[in-house]
Amino acid sequence: MATNGDLGDLTERVRAFAVERSWEQFHTPKNLSMALAGEVGELLAELQWLTPEQSLAVMEDPELGPRVRAEIGDVMIYLTRLADVLDIDLAEAARDKLADSARRYTVEAAHGSAAKIRP
Amino acid sequence: MATNGDLGDLTERVRAFAVERSWEQFHTPKNLSMALAGEVGELLAELQWLTPEQSLAVMEDPELGPRVRAEIGDVMIYLTRLADVLDIDLAEAARDKLADSARRYTVEAAHGSAAKIRP
Amino acid sequence: MATNGDLGDLTERVRAFAVERSWEQFHTPKNLSMALAGEVGELLAELQWLTPEQSLAVMEDPELGPRVRAEIGDVMIYLTRLADVLDIDLAEAARDKLADSARRYTVEAAHGSAAKIRP
Amino acid sequence: MATNGDLGDLTERVRAFAVERSWEQFHTPKNLSMALAGEVGELLAELQWLTPEQSLAVMEDPELGPRVRAEIGDVMIYLTRLADVLDIDLAEAARDKLADSARRYTVEAAHGSAAKIRP
Repeated sequence: MATNGDLGDLTERVRAFAVERSWEQFHTPKNLSMALAGEVGELLAELQWLTPEQSLAVMEDPELGPRVRAEIGDVMIYLTRLADVLDIDLAEAARDKLADSARRYTVEAAHGSAAKIRP
Repeated sequence: MATNGDLGDLTERVRAFAVERSWEQFHTPKNLSMALAGEVGELLAELQWLTPEQSLAVMEDPELGPRVRAEIGDVMIYLTRLADVLDIDLAEAARDKLADSARRYTVEAAHGSAAKIRP
Repeated sequence: MATNGDLGDLTERVRAFAVERSWEQFHTPKNLSMALAGEVGELLAELQWLTPEQSLAVMEDPELGPRVRAEIGDVMIYLTRLADVLDIDLAEAARDKLADSARRYTVEAAHGSAAKIRP
Repeated sequence: MATNGDLGDLTERVRAFAVERSWEQFHTPKNLSMALAGEVGELLAELQWLTPEQSLAVMEDPELGPRVRAEIGDVMIYLTRLADVLDIDLAEAARDKLADSARRYTVEAAHGSAAKIRP
Protein backbone atom coordinates (compact mmCIF):
# COMPACT_ATOMS: atom_id res chain seq x y z
CA MET A 1 0.00 0.00 0.00
CA ALA A 2 1.40 3.35 -0.95
CA THR A 3 0.90 6.08 1.61
CA ASN A 4 1.67 9.71 1.17
CA GLY A 5 4.91 11.27 2.32
CA ASP A 6 8.23 9.57 3.02
CA LEU A 7 6.70 6.18 3.83
CA GLY A 8 4.77 6.11 0.57
CA ASP A 9 7.90 7.00 -1.37
CA LEU A 10 9.90 4.28 0.38
CA THR A 11 7.17 1.71 -0.22
CA GLU A 12 7.32 2.39 -3.94
CA ARG A 13 11.11 2.22 -4.05
CA VAL A 14 11.22 -1.12 -2.23
CA ARG A 15 8.47 -2.52 -4.42
CA ALA A 16 10.24 -1.43 -7.61
CA PHE A 17 13.45 -3.02 -6.33
CA ALA A 18 11.66 -6.36 -5.90
CA VAL A 19 9.69 -6.19 -9.15
CA GLU A 20 12.77 -5.38 -11.25
CA ARG A 21 14.42 -8.55 -9.92
CA SER A 22 11.28 -10.71 -10.20
CA TRP A 23 11.40 -11.34 -6.48
CA GLU A 24 7.64 -10.93 -5.89
CA GLN A 25 7.37 -14.73 -6.06
CA PHE A 26 9.48 -15.00 -2.88
CA HIS A 27 7.86 -12.11 -1.07
CA THR A 28 5.04 -13.87 0.75
CA PRO A 29 4.21 -12.50 4.23
CA LYS A 30 5.59 -15.68 5.77
CA ASN A 31 8.94 -15.39 3.99
CA LEU A 32 9.19 -11.64 4.58
CA SER A 33 8.51 -12.05 8.30
CA MET A 34 11.45 -14.46 8.46
CA ALA A 35 13.66 -12.02 6.57
CA LEU A 36 12.58 -9.27 8.96
CA ALA A 37 13.52 -11.46 11.93
CA GLY A 38 16.86 -12.26 10.32
CA GLU A 39 17.70 -8.57 9.98
CA VAL A 40 16.60 -7.85 13.55
CA GLY A 41 18.92 -10.66 14.59
CA GLU A 42 21.82 -8.91 12.85
CA LEU A 43 20.93 -5.71 14.67
CA LEU A 44 20.92 -7.51 18.03
CA ALA A 45 24.32 -9.01 17.21
CA GLU A 46 25.79 -5.51 16.94
CA LEU A 47 24.44 -4.51 20.37
CA GLN A 48 24.60 -7.77 22.34
CA TRP A 49 27.87 -7.27 24.22
CA LEU A 50 27.44 -3.54 24.85
CA THR A 51 26.13 -2.26 28.14
CA PRO A 52 22.89 -0.26 27.88
CA GLU A 53 25.02 2.85 28.47
CA GLN A 54 27.45 1.94 25.70
CA SER A 55 24.52 1.30 23.39
CA LEU A 56 23.39 4.90 23.91
CA ALA A 57 26.68 6.11 22.39
CA VAL A 58 26.89 3.55 19.61
CA MET A 59 26.40 6.08 16.80
CA GLU A 60 29.58 7.89 17.86
CA ASP A 61 31.63 4.78 17.14
CA PRO A 62 33.09 5.11 13.62
CA GLU A 63 32.82 1.36 12.99
CA LEU A 64 29.70 0.31 14.88
CA GLY A 65 27.63 3.41 14.11
CA PRO A 66 27.36 2.90 10.35
CA ARG A 67 26.77 -0.83 10.84
CA VAL A 68 23.86 -0.19 13.22
CA ARG A 69 22.39 2.36 10.82
CA ALA A 70 22.66 -0.11 7.93
CA GLU A 71 20.96 -2.86 9.95
CA ILE A 72 18.14 -0.53 10.90
CA GLY A 73 17.82 0.35 7.23
CA ASP A 74 17.51 -3.36 6.41
CA VAL A 75 14.86 -3.88 9.09
CA MET A 76 12.89 -0.92 7.73
CA ILE A 77 13.14 -2.21 4.16
CA TYR A 78 11.65 -5.59 5.04
CA LEU A 79 9.01 -4.11 7.32
CA THR A 80 7.97 -1.73 4.54
CA ARG A 81 7.85 -4.55 2.02
CA LEU A 82 5.84 -6.78 4.38
CA ALA A 83 3.31 -4.01 5.02
CA ASP A 84 3.05 -3.35 1.28
CA VAL A 85 2.36 -7.00 0.48
CA LEU A 86 -0.30 -7.13 3.22
CA ASP A 87 -1.77 -3.77 2.11
CA ILE A 88 -1.22 -2.32 5.57
CA ASP A 89 -0.43 1.37 6.12
CA LEU A 90 2.57 1.18 8.46
CA ALA A 91 2.15 4.59 10.05
CA GLU A 92 -1.58 4.09 10.53
CA ALA A 93 -1.11 0.63 12.05
CA ALA A 94 1.45 2.08 14.47
CA ARG A 95 -0.79 5.05 15.37
CA ASP A 96 -3.75 2.74 15.99
CA LYS A 97 -1.66 0.47 18.20
CA LEU A 98 -0.29 3.46 20.09
CA ALA A 99 -3.82 4.69 20.77
CA ASP A 100 -4.73 1.23 21.99
CA SER A 101 -1.69 1.15 24.28
CA ALA A 102 -2.56 4.59 25.62
CA ARG A 103 -5.86 3.20 26.82
CA ARG A 104 -4.23 0.17 28.44
CA TYR A 105 -1.31 2.02 30.02
CA THR A 106 -2.60 5.28 31.35
CA VAL A 107 -0.03 7.91 32.26
CA GLU A 108 -0.99 7.66 35.93
CA ALA A 109 -0.72 3.91 36.24
CA ALA A 110 2.36 3.41 34.12
CA HIS A 111 4.48 6.31 35.29
CA GLY A 112 8.00 5.04 35.56
CA SER A 113 7.01 1.42 35.90
CA ALA A 114 9.14 -0.96 33.87
CA ALA A 115 6.76 -3.84 34.48
CA LYS A 116 4.05 -2.03 32.60
CA ILE A 117 6.01 -1.11 29.50
CA ARG A 118 4.31 -2.82 26.61
CA PRO A 119 3.47 -0.04 24.15
CA MET B 1 15.09 12.35 15.00
CA ALA B 2 11.99 13.94 13.64
CA THR B 3 11.59 13.72 9.90
CA ASN B 4 8.99 15.38 7.78
CA GLY B 5 5.78 13.66 6.77
CA ASP B 6 4.10 10.65 8.33
CA LEU B 7 7.31 9.23 9.80
CA GLY B 8 8.12 12.49 11.54
CA ASP B 9 4.63 12.64 12.97
CA LEU B 10 4.82 9.06 14.21
CA THR B 11 8.25 9.65 15.74
CA GLU B 12 6.85 12.52 17.77
CA ARG B 13 3.80 10.57 18.90
CA VAL B 14 5.87 7.60 20.07
CA ARG B 15 8.33 9.90 21.84
CA ALA B 16 5.53 11.74 23.63
CA PHE B 17 4.03 8.42 24.69
CA ALA B 18 7.33 7.42 26.31
CA VAL B 19 8.06 10.80 27.86
CA GLU B 20 4.61 11.09 29.46
CA ARG B 21 5.21 7.75 31.20
CA SER B 22 8.83 8.52 32.16
CA TRP B 23 9.98 5.55 30.14
CA GLU B 24 12.99 7.26 28.56
CA GLN B 25 15.14 5.69 31.27
CA PHE B 26 14.33 2.23 29.87
CA HIS B 27 14.62 3.19 26.22
CA THR B 28 18.28 2.50 25.55
CA PRO B 29 19.09 1.15 22.09
CA LYS B 30 19.99 -2.20 23.64
CA ASN B 31 16.65 -2.52 25.44
CA LEU B 32 14.66 -1.26 22.46
CA SER B 33 16.34 -3.73 20.10
CA MET B 34 15.21 -6.52 22.43
CA ALA B 35 11.67 -5.15 22.51
CA LEU B 36 11.73 -4.94 18.71
CA ALA B 37 12.81 -8.58 18.50
CA GLY B 38 10.10 -9.57 20.96
CA GLU B 39 7.41 -7.98 18.79
CA VAL B 40 8.82 -9.57 15.64
CA GLY B 41 8.63 -12.89 17.50
CA GLU B 42 4.92 -12.30 18.14
CA LEU B 43 4.44 -11.55 14.44
CA LEU B 44 6.20 -14.79 13.47
CA ALA B 45 3.99 -16.70 15.91
CA GLU B 46 0.91 -15.57 13.98
CA LEU B 47 2.33 -16.81 10.67
CA GLN B 48 4.38 -19.85 11.69
CA TRP B 49 1.90 -22.65 10.88
CA LEU B 50 0.49 -21.05 7.73
CA THR B 51 1.69 -22.08 4.31
CA PRO B 52 3.26 -19.23 2.29
CA GLU B 53 0.06 -19.27 0.22
CA GLN B 54 -2.15 -19.01 3.31
CA SER B 55 0.01 -16.16 4.58
CA LEU B 56 -0.80 -14.20 1.40
CA ALA B 57 -4.50 -14.24 2.37
CA VAL B 58 -4.03 -13.64 6.09
CA MET B 59 -5.62 -10.18 6.06
CA GLU B 60 -8.90 -11.69 4.85
CA ASP B 61 -9.17 -13.76 8.03
CA PRO B 62 -11.39 -11.86 10.50
CA GLU B 63 -9.37 -13.08 13.51
CA LEU B 64 -5.83 -13.33 12.22
CA GLY B 65 -5.90 -10.20 10.04
CA PRO B 66 -6.34 -7.66 12.83
CA ARG B 67 -3.80 -9.52 14.99
CA VAL B 68 -1.17 -9.38 12.24
CA ARG B 69 -1.87 -5.69 11.67
CA ALA B 70 -1.53 -4.98 15.39
CA GLU B 71 1.78 -6.87 15.59
CA ILE B 72 3.12 -4.95 12.61
CA GLY B 73 2.04 -1.76 14.37
CA ASP B 74 4.01 -2.82 17.45
CA VAL B 75 7.10 -3.59 15.39
CA MET B 76 6.85 -0.19 13.71
CA ILE B 77 6.43 1.57 17.07
CA TYR B 78 9.62 0.08 18.51
CA LEU B 79 11.57 0.56 15.28
CA THR B 80 10.52 4.21 15.20
CA ARG B 81 11.47 4.69 18.83
CA LEU B 82 14.84 2.98 18.34
CA ALA B 83 15.63 5.18 15.35
CA ASP B 84 14.59 8.26 17.31
CA VAL B 85 16.86 7.42 20.25
CA LEU B 86 19.78 6.81 17.87
CA ASP B 87 18.97 9.97 15.88
CA ILE B 88 18.61 7.96 12.67
CA ASP B 89 16.19 8.96 9.91
CA LEU B 90 14.40 5.65 9.22
CA ALA B 91 13.38 6.42 5.64
CA GLU B 92 16.81 7.77 4.75
CA ALA B 93 18.59 4.76 6.30
CA ALA B 94 16.33 2.44 4.29
CA ARG B 95 16.86 4.40 1.06
CA ASP B 96 20.63 4.37 1.54
CA LYS B 97 20.64 0.63 2.20
CA LEU B 98 18.44 0.05 -0.84
CA ALA B 99 20.85 2.01 -3.02
CA ASP B 100 23.69 -0.06 -1.63
CA SER B 101 21.80 -3.29 -2.35
CA ALA B 102 21.05 -2.10 -5.89
CA ARG B 103 24.79 -1.92 -6.51
CA ARG B 104 25.40 -5.37 -5.06
CA TYR B 105 22.43 -7.11 -6.69
CA THR B 106 22.14 -5.78 -10.20
CA VAL B 107 18.91 -6.47 -12.02
CA GLU B 108 20.72 -8.68 -14.54
CA ALA B 109 22.52 -10.88 -12.03
CA ALA B 110 19.74 -11.23 -9.50
CA HIS B 111 16.78 -11.74 -11.81
CA GLY B 112 14.60 -14.36 -10.24
CA SER B 113 17.36 -15.86 -8.15
CA ALA B 114 16.39 -16.67 -4.59
CA ALA B 115 19.97 -17.28 -3.57
CA LYS B 116 20.77 -13.66 -4.28
CA ILE B 117 17.89 -12.09 -2.40
CA ARG B 118 19.42 -9.91 0.25
CA PRO B 119 17.90 -6.46 -0.34
CA MET C 1 24.26 -26.11 35.89
CA ALA C 2 25.89 -29.34 34.92
CA THR C 3 23.52 -32.19 34.18
CA ASN C 4 24.45 -35.76 33.53
CA GLY C 5 24.82 -37.14 30.03
CA ASP C 6 25.47 -35.28 26.82
CA LEU C 7 23.92 -32.02 28.01
CA GLY C 8 26.08 -31.95 31.10
CA ASP C 9 29.17 -32.56 29.03
CA LEU C 10 28.24 -29.81 26.58
CA THR C 11 27.50 -27.39 29.41
CA GLU C 12 30.99 -27.91 30.77
CA ARG C 13 32.65 -27.51 27.39
CA VAL C 14 30.84 -24.26 26.66
CA ARG C 15 31.61 -22.95 30.13
CA ALA C 16 35.31 -23.79 29.79
CA PHE C 17 35.37 -22.07 26.42
CA ALA C 18 34.03 -18.86 27.99
CA VAL C 19 36.19 -19.02 31.11
CA GLU C 20 39.40 -19.54 29.15
CA ARG C 21 38.69 -16.35 27.23
CA SER C 22 37.55 -14.35 30.28
CA TRP C 23 34.15 -13.89 28.67
CA GLU C 24 32.10 -14.53 31.82
CA GLN C 25 31.91 -10.76 32.28
CA PHE C 26 29.88 -10.48 29.07
CA HIS C 27 27.72 -13.53 29.67
CA THR C 28 24.80 -12.02 31.54
CA PRO C 29 21.39 -13.58 30.81
CA LYS C 30 20.37 -10.38 29.04
CA ASN C 31 23.39 -10.41 26.73
CA LEU C 32 23.16 -14.15 26.10
CA SER C 33 19.48 -13.94 25.20
CA MET C 34 20.41 -11.35 22.56
CA ALA C 35 23.18 -13.59 21.24
CA LEU C 36 20.72 -16.49 21.12
CA ALA C 37 18.27 -14.37 19.13
CA GLY C 38 21.06 -13.29 16.79
CA GLU C 39 21.93 -16.91 16.01
CA VAL C 40 18.28 -17.85 15.51
CA GLY C 41 18.12 -14.92 13.07
CA GLU C 42 21.00 -16.43 11.10
CA LEU C 43 19.17 -19.76 11.03
CA LEU C 44 16.01 -18.09 9.72
CA ALA C 45 18.05 -16.35 7.03
CA GLU C 46 19.12 -19.76 5.67
CA LEU C 47 15.51 -20.95 5.42
CA GLN C 48 13.58 -17.79 4.60
CA TRP C 49 13.22 -18.15 0.83
CA LEU C 50 12.72 -21.90 0.80
CA THR C 51 9.26 -23.40 0.57
CA PRO C 52 8.29 -25.58 3.56
CA GLU C 53 8.81 -28.58 1.27
CA GLN C 54 12.28 -27.42 0.23
CA SER C 55 13.14 -26.86 3.88
CA LEU C 56 12.42 -30.54 4.55
CA ALA C 57 15.21 -31.50 2.15
CA VAL C 58 17.68 -28.82 3.19
CA MET C 59 20.18 -31.25 4.70
CA GLU C 60 20.65 -32.91 1.30
CA ASP C 61 21.94 -29.65 -0.16
CA PRO C 62 25.76 -29.76 -0.04
CA GLU C 63 26.01 -26.01 0.64
CA LEU C 64 22.94 -25.23 2.72
CA GLY C 65 22.97 -28.41 4.81
CA PRO C 66 26.26 -27.78 6.62
CA ARG C 67 25.34 -24.11 7.10
CA VAL C 68 22.02 -25.02 8.74
CA ARG C 69 23.76 -27.57 10.97
CA ALA C 70 26.35 -24.97 12.02
CA GLU C 71 23.65 -22.40 12.83
CA ILE C 72 21.76 -24.95 14.92
CA GLY C 73 25.04 -25.69 16.70
CA ASP C 74 25.43 -21.99 17.46
CA VAL C 75 21.88 -21.72 18.78
CA MET C 76 22.47 -24.74 21.01
CA ILE C 77 25.75 -23.30 22.32
CA TYR C 78 24.14 -20.05 23.44
CA LEU C 79 21.06 -21.78 24.83
CA THR C 80 23.29 -24.12 26.85
CA ARG C 81 25.36 -21.21 28.12
CA LEU C 82 22.27 -19.20 29.05
CA ALA C 83 20.81 -22.14 30.99
CA ASP C 84 24.15 -22.66 32.73
CA VAL C 85 24.37 -19.03 33.83
CA LEU C 86 20.78 -19.17 35.14
CA ASP C 87 21.39 -22.57 36.79
CA ILE C 88 18.55 -24.10 34.80
CA ASP C 89 18.60 -27.76 33.71
CA LEU C 90 17.69 -27.47 30.02
CA ALA C 91 16.27 -30.98 29.62
CA GLU C 92 14.27 -30.73 32.83
CA ALA C 93 12.88 -27.29 31.91
CA ALA C 94 11.81 -28.69 28.53
CA ARG C 95 10.24 -31.81 30.07
CA ASP C 96 8.32 -29.72 32.59
CA LYS C 97 7.03 -27.40 29.87
CA LEU C 98 6.06 -30.37 27.73
CA ALA C 99 4.07 -31.85 30.62
CA ASP C 100 2.39 -28.49 31.07
CA SER C 101 1.54 -28.30 27.36
CA ALA C 102 0.17 -31.86 27.46
CA ARG C 103 -2.37 -30.70 30.03
CA ARG C 104 -3.34 -27.65 27.99
CA TYR C 105 -3.46 -29.37 24.61
CA THR C 106 -5.01 -32.76 25.11
CA VAL C 107 -4.62 -35.25 22.30
CA GLU C 108 -8.35 -35.19 21.66
CA ALA C 109 -8.75 -31.44 21.41
CA ALA C 110 -5.58 -30.69 19.53
CA HIS C 111 -5.60 -33.51 17.01
CA GLY C 112 -4.49 -32.04 13.72
CA SER C 113 -5.40 -28.50 14.61
CA ALA C 114 -2.83 -25.91 13.65
CA ALA C 115 -4.57 -23.20 15.63
CA LYS C 116 -3.90 -25.08 18.81
CA ILE C 117 -0.22 -25.76 18.28
CA ARG C 118 1.59 -24.00 21.10
CA PRO C 119 3.64 -26.72 22.81
CA MET D 1 17.53 -38.16 15.50
CA ALA D 2 17.60 -39.84 18.87
CA THR D 3 20.83 -39.49 20.76
CA ASN D 4 21.79 -41.22 23.95
CA GLY D 5 21.29 -39.65 27.34
CA ASP D 6 19.00 -36.81 28.32
CA LEU D 7 18.91 -35.27 24.86
CA GLY D 8 17.85 -38.55 23.28
CA ASP D 9 15.11 -38.98 25.84
CA LEU D 10 13.86 -35.44 25.30
CA THR D 11 13.90 -35.88 21.52
CA GLU D 12 11.66 -38.90 21.84
CA ARG D 13 9.25 -37.18 24.22
CA VAL D 14 8.87 -34.15 21.97
CA ARG D 15 8.41 -36.35 18.92
CA ALA D 16 5.73 -38.43 20.66
CA PHE D 17 3.95 -35.24 21.71
CA ALA D 18 3.78 -34.11 18.07
CA VAL D 19 2.87 -37.50 16.64
CA GLU D 20 0.02 -38.03 19.10
CA ARG D 21 -1.52 -34.75 17.98
CA SER D 22 -0.86 -35.33 14.25
CA TRP D 23 1.28 -32.23 14.15
CA GLU D 24 4.06 -33.70 12.00
CA GLN D 25 2.38 -32.11 9.00
CA PHE D 26 3.12 -28.65 10.44
CA HIS D 27 6.61 -29.44 11.64
CA THR D 28 8.67 -28.52 8.62
CA PRO D 29 12.08 -26.99 9.36
CA LYS D 30 10.84 -23.66 8.04
CA ASN D 31 7.81 -23.61 10.33
CA LEU D 32 9.77 -24.87 13.33
CA SER D 33 12.46 -22.23 12.88
CA MET D 34 9.73 -19.58 13.05
CA ALA D 35 8.27 -21.17 16.18
CA LEU D 36 11.77 -21.23 17.69
CA ALA D 37 12.19 -17.53 16.93
CA GLY D 38 8.78 -16.80 18.42
CA GLU D 39 9.73 -18.47 21.69
CA VAL D 40 13.09 -16.68 21.78
CA GLY D 41 11.13 -13.46 21.32
CA GLU D 42 9.05 -14.28 24.39
CA LEU D 43 12.25 -14.92 26.34
CA LEU D 44 13.66 -11.54 25.26
CA ALA D 45 10.43 -9.86 26.33
CA GLU D 46 10.98 -11.10 29.89
CA LEU D 47 14.50 -9.65 30.00
CA GLN D 48 14.23 -6.52 27.86
CA TRP D 49 13.79 -3.87 30.54
CA LEU D 50 16.15 -5.40 33.08
CA THR D 51 19.71 -4.17 33.43
CA PRO D 52 22.36 -6.84 32.74
CA GLU D 53 22.92 -6.93 36.51
CA GLN D 54 19.22 -7.45 37.23
CA SER D 55 19.12 -10.20 34.64
CA LEU D 56 21.79 -12.08 36.60
CA ALA D 57 19.40 -12.31 39.56
CA VAL D 58 16.25 -13.02 37.56
CA MET D 59 15.82 -16.57 38.90
CA GLU D 60 15.47 -15.20 42.43
CA ASP D 61 12.36 -13.28 41.43
CA PRO D 62 9.32 -15.39 42.36
CA GLU D 63 7.32 -14.18 39.34
CA LEU D 64 9.94 -13.67 36.66
CA GLY D 65 12.09 -16.69 37.51
CA PRO D 66 9.51 -19.37 36.65
CA ARG D 67 8.49 -17.45 33.52
CA VAL D 68 12.08 -17.31 32.27
CA ARG D 69 12.52 -21.02 33.00
CA ALA D 70 9.32 -21.85 31.11
CA GLU D 71 10.40 -19.78 28.10
CA ILE D 72 13.77 -21.51 28.05
CA GLY D 73 11.91 -24.81 28.19
CA ASP D 74 9.86 -23.76 25.16
CA VAL D 75 12.96 -22.71 23.23
CA MET D 76 14.59 -26.07 24.01
CA ILE D 77 11.47 -27.98 22.93
CA TYR D 78 11.39 -26.36 19.50
CA LEU D 79 15.15 -26.59 19.04
CA THR D 80 15.02 -30.29 19.89
CA ARG D 81 12.11 -30.86 17.50
CA LEU D 82 13.84 -28.93 14.71
CA ALA D 83 17.04 -30.95 15.14
CA ASP D 84 15.00 -34.18 15.16
CA VAL D 85 13.22 -33.31 11.92
CA LEU D 86 16.54 -32.43 10.27
CA ASP D 87 18.22 -35.57 11.71
CA ILE D 88 20.86 -33.44 13.43
CA ASP D 89 22.43 -34.48 16.74
CA LEU D 90 22.13 -31.26 18.77
CA ALA D 91 25.01 -31.95 21.15
CA GLU D 92 27.31 -33.06 18.35
CA ALA D 93 26.44 -30.01 16.21
CA ALA D 94 27.21 -27.76 19.19
CA ARG D 95 30.49 -29.55 19.96
CA ASP D 96 31.59 -29.32 16.33
CA LYS D 97 30.78 -25.61 16.20
CA LEU D 98 32.58 -25.04 19.48
CA ALA D 99 35.69 -26.76 18.12
CA ASP D 100 35.46 -24.58 15.04
CA SER D 101 35.15 -21.45 17.17
CA ALA D 102 38.13 -22.53 19.28
CA ARG D 103 40.25 -22.46 16.12
CA ARG D 104 38.98 -19.04 15.10
CA TYR D 105 39.13 -17.42 18.55
CA THR D 106 42.29 -18.61 20.22
CA VAL D 107 42.57 -18.04 23.94
CA GLU D 108 45.45 -15.65 23.40
CA ALA D 109 43.80 -13.44 20.84
CA ALA D 110 40.35 -13.36 22.34
CA HIS D 111 41.18 -12.96 26.00
CA GLY D 112 38.70 -10.51 27.43
CA SER D 113 37.87 -8.95 24.12
CA ALA D 114 34.17 -8.34 23.57
CA ALA D 115 34.69 -7.55 19.92
CA LYS D 116 35.88 -11.07 19.31
CA ILE D 117 33.09 -12.91 21.07
CA ARG D 118 31.41 -15.06 18.48
CA PRO D 119 31.54 -18.59 19.88
